[in-house]
Amino acid sequence: MTSMIISTLSGLHLIGDLYQCNPTHLSDSTLLRKRCTQLCKDAGLTVLGDFFYQFEDAGVTGTVVLAESHIAIHTWPETCTVALDVFVCNHSRDNSDKAHQLFNTAVELLQPKKVIRKAVVRGRYERQTAHRVA
Amino acid sequence: MTSMIISTLSGLHLIGDLYQCNPTHLSDSTLLRKRCTQLCKDAGLTVLGDFFYQFEDAGVTGTVVLAESHIAIHTWPETCTVALDVFVCNHSRDNSDKAHQLFNTAVELLQPKKVIRKAVVRGRYERQTAHRVA
Repeated sequence: MTSMIISTLSGLHLIGDLYQCNPTHLSDSTLLRKRCTQLCKDAGLTVLGDFFYQFEDAGVTGTVVLAESHIAIHTWPETCTVALDVFVCNHSRDNSDKAHQLFNTAVELLQPKKVIRKAVVRGRYERQTAHRVA
Repeated sequence: MTSMIISTLSGLHLIGDLYQCNPTHLSDSTLLRKRCTQLCKDAGLTVLGDFFYQFEDAGVTGTVVLAESHIAIHTWPETCTVALDVFVCNHSRDNSDKAHQLFNTAVELLQPKKVIRKAVVRGRYERQTAHRVA
């Protein structure tokens, strides 16, 4: 007997609070948008669209919407801090490796001296209660 | 002597895995986008822009970018599940009340029978180490 687990919401959400970043990418929305979307593609993820906003004489805030969920980035160049979120769902396969690659390459881009990182497993309840089909 | 804490990244991130939702809003990106942006405004948050995508004969994925950070929503109508994120920063004031209002009204909209909710305090390290100016 084989079983199939129906799973959709299931995925890995990586949360980073980044301190003492390199300021190069923190106050240029055009550059940050270009680099972020490229990092998503490099990780094998599917970019559906994005929205980035440049605050006047300040930081950048933006998201890239993926077929597999999203990346969000908010920067404060005045203190060289960045809030980074990478959420990648496992709709057709386990995409945890892609989530880690995207998170790690974004951190490499921003060059923080200190990272507070959390990993949240999404859809845990769903996996525990998923229908099993014989 | 008075002190001022310089704080930027600091904020509240509410994460929801929603199960057994009402399907009404889960497969209509136009409707979901309209409702989400209105809920942000109702909570006193500033909408900068958004991107929503309609999967063919399936769910919706989208984000609303706020001056105070973002809301992200990903739906799977085939299982009536939704991944919901509300991240609201405290740049000029403590916006935790607005984060809770937005999260709670989004949950009311989607009407899940089961919610797995997590609250992540962002920028905790920054608050602990913030410069204090006499």
